[in-house]
Amino acid sequence: MSVADTLTEALPPDRVRTEPDDLATWGTDWTRSYQVAPSAVVFPESVEEVAALTRLANDRGLALVPSGGRTGLSGGAVATSGEVVVSFDRMHRILGFNEADRIVRCQAGVVTQALQEFAQGKGLFYPVDFASSGSSQIGGNIATNAGGIKVIRHGLTRDWVAGLTVVTGAGQVLELNRGLVKNATGYDLRHLFIGSEGTLGFIVEADLKLAEPPAPQRVMVLGLDRFADALRVLPCFQARLTLSAFEFFSELALSKVLAHRELQRPLATPAAFYALLEFDADAEDAALAAFEEALAEGWASDGVMSQSDAQAAALWALREGITEGIAPQVPYKNDISVRISEVPGFLDDVNDIVSAHYPDLEVCWFGHIGDGNLHLNILKPKGLPIEDFYQRCHTISPKLFALIGARGGSISAEHGVGLLKRDFLHFSRSEEELALMRSLKRTFDPNGVMNPGKLLAMP
Amino acid sequence: MSVADTLTEALPPDRVRTEPDDLATWGTDWTRSYQVAPSAVVFPESVEEVAALTRLANDRGLALVPSGGRTGLSGGAVATSGEVVVSFDRMHRILGFNEADRIVRCQAGVVTQALQEFAQGKGLFYPVDFASSGSSQIGGNIATNAGGIKVIRHGLTRDWVAGLTVVTGAGQVLELNRGLVKNATGYDLRHLFIGSEGTLGFIVEADLKLAEPPAPQRVMVLGLDRFADALRVLPCFQARLTLSAFEFFSELALSKVLAHRELQRPLATPAAFYALLEFDADAEDAALAAFEEALAEGWASDGVMSQSDAQAAALWALREGITEGIAPQVPYKNDISVRISEVPGFLDDVNDIVSAHYPDLEVCWFGHIGDGNLHLNILKPKGLPIEDFYQRCHTISPKLFALIGARGGSISAEHGVGLLKRDFLHFSRSEEELALMRSLKRTFDPNGVMNPGKLLAMP
Repeated sequence: MSVADTLTEALPPDRVRTEPDDLATWGTDWTRSYQVAPSAVVFPESVEEVAALTRLANDRGLALVPSGGRTGLSGGAVATSGEVVVSFDRMHRILGFNEADRIVRCQAGVVTQALQEFAQGKGLFYPVDFASSGSSQIGGNIATNAGGIKVIRHGLTRDWVAGLTVVTGAGQVLELNRGLVKNATGYDLRHLFIGSEGTLGFIVEADLKLAEPPAPQRVMVLGLDRFADALRVLPCFQARLTLSAFEFFSELALSKVLAHRELQRPLATPAAFYALLEFDADAEDAALAAFEEALAEGWASDGVMSQSDAQAAALWALREGITEGIAPQVPYKNDISVRISEVPGFLDDVNDIVSAHYPDLEVCWFGHIGDGNLHLNILKPKGLPIEDFYQRCHTISPKLFALIGARGGSISAEHGVGLLKRDFLHFSRSEEELALMRSLKRTFDPNGVMNPGKLLAMP
Repeated sequence: MSVADTLTEALPPDRVRTEPDDLATWGTDWTRSYQVAPSAVVFPESVEEVAALTRLANDRGLALVPSGGRTGLSGGAVATSGEVVVSFDRMHRILGFNEADRIVRCQAGVVTQALQEFAQGKGLFYPVDFASSGSSQIGGNIATNAGGIKVIRHGLTRDWVAGLTVVTGAGQVLELNRGLVKNATGYDLRHLFIGSEGTLGFIVEADLKLAEPPAPQRVMVLGLDRFADALRVLPCFQARLTLSAFEFFSELALSKVLAHRELQRPLATPAAFYALLEFDADAEDAALAAFEEALAEGWASDGVMSQSDAQAAALWALREGITEGIAPQVPYKNDISVRISEVPGFLDDVNDIVSAHYPDLEVCWFGHIGDGNLHLNILKPKGLPIEDFYQRCHTISPKLFALIGARGGSISAEHGVGLLKRDFLHFSRSEEELALMRSLKRTFDPNGVMNPGKLLAMP
């Protein structure tokens, strides 16, 4: 019996696909360095169908890969070994909204932007936001505890999840926390599933909190001569006002965006680094005072502030266009974090390594300084075959991860571990933790049907 | 070999106590309805001592009860069967503070108020606050995910924990999350320990986030004729301003406080219920406009607003004095929550039950309406022997818990499950969840040395 035939025991045949094009499309995410080889793609429409499918997988020894908007950058949703990809594209409905609770119930396949627009329609706000909001799905956001560009003000996806419905790897349906604010009834399994990357079970529905809409925002871009100045500018502003975002990027990153999108430079003179700040419009005077101080102290060389929403969007485009702008150069991405206080020393360490051992490689920095999250992108030199490039990067990674480990940081700040960092996880988690994580995995997914090979190597 | 002798293999003899007075003091918490019978009390001073003690307990079959400020109300820190009580009274130091990270590292025995004062000394704010702040300890707060009176604005203890050092039931020391804002490296064991009530291991040290100090606050007390008006007043204010607290209490609760503390009534005429609101002083005009509307609509009958910090404290005393005010009547406490939208219907249900079956019992309501958390206190009639009173209350609880279960609520909003609610946990958690929780317990505490009998009945 073929896998497709088996799957029709749980789903109608028109929602089981095996055409090569479909397998190639749904078998991968934005990580491009893996061979994609699922055996089928399925499109359940209900919690019951997901549960039936999972029980079938347990009975017949199938491996399942949960698939959301496929915008992941660590290979968490890539199917490389004949797995069945379970797409949530047909579970994209908003199921309900309660005004008193300010809670919206979503199927896992609701696209982030659709939720943001729904909230706006209710006069409210869903504050988790990132470049991939137009395609990423809520289920995937929760499975990776997605962060993004507003974390210093509004927190991570975890902070907005009031309840979860999950299907465990054993096929059990659990209702976790049910939208309660206060619930002291033992182990909070909701938080265990958040960030579990589809290895314990499926996130099938979620109760998400909505917030008050933010005040009108202003955006400022500053030019900085030295990276360390970013760490001086941040407290200089934070002492005077609440920031909604504090992003940084290097001149190299900016130049790639300008070339890719044919945009104008934000400042007349190029600087080595840039900081992008967002804040409430009524804090404009406080921000200008902070800017004056930064100029006077020599921490900033120049700056510009948005005078309209259109200008604010144009300044944000400089930061949000980076991923797209560097994509043609096949960047080897590192998404790392340390405590904010460790950022300057860590940056020096990394620059030392790269300039000592790999002076010919371009390193494109950007990230969310306000929360200690740096994106370090190594760009492939023209002419170097991709295999050789990856080979070189793979020799850099352990050195980089050892530095991160020594500074108590994380080898994955927000992209997740997936396939890409699985074998490096010990740089961020102890052997004892890894052993406990394996036990948890076996508790929720005793037969190992859920996203095998991702996050944790199972013996 | 006596238990005390055994314990000196891990701790110096002067930190092992077995005198009856000490056993009585450290063997219990604020829950008063259990026979207290520990075999010893120990006072470790370091993470290493706690780990050594835990390994010893595994080797020799000892049961350990973690003990913080002993302010719990569910018997989570009560020792009834010869356990060894592990007090954190001698681990009360603040170990470090980093200004850039705004993170303070505490030993588990730091008292909540000491942390609040430390934060104040740094020009910052630790926002989790409750009536027991003067004695409750950080480790216990984390073990129960303590909530309190500022949850609608500042969240629960969980929201302020950036890192945890724990000793598992197997005696392993884990460093969980290490103060990082963003850390997507798999299962977040930190969140599993938060709210685990000492059943998985000991919380020994914690990294806690501090916040900006709040603006000056105003406090308003409103008189309400009907409970349902509280649910009208809340959105009426929330549409115009951000509330820091929204508490309610009944005339019966107020009358107990007034009598106990010899205080003046806040309003000239008694009302059936009262709401206490706190908000930033610069939202005073918006609050007065909301109050006008509430008066005009008949949702509030009268009101008073603080004109000074002393008046604000006096109004808060009316709410914070309730627990103490009703203590002489040996209240049978219920600490329950439902979604905010379910509160009115739930309250009607409970009033129906109590007035139909127990018309002679006084029910004293108070709670945190803004987060759906109600404290329902049944007062012992004079003359009724305490055993008979508890007997009657124990026949009410299952009816109450069934109502809560039907409305998707929680049988413990913030006090925890402990001994008191262990056998009722199935009203809030499914059989599948309970089985998974037992597996988690066995993973972290394979020999069952940690707080046996609490939270979960283990077969």
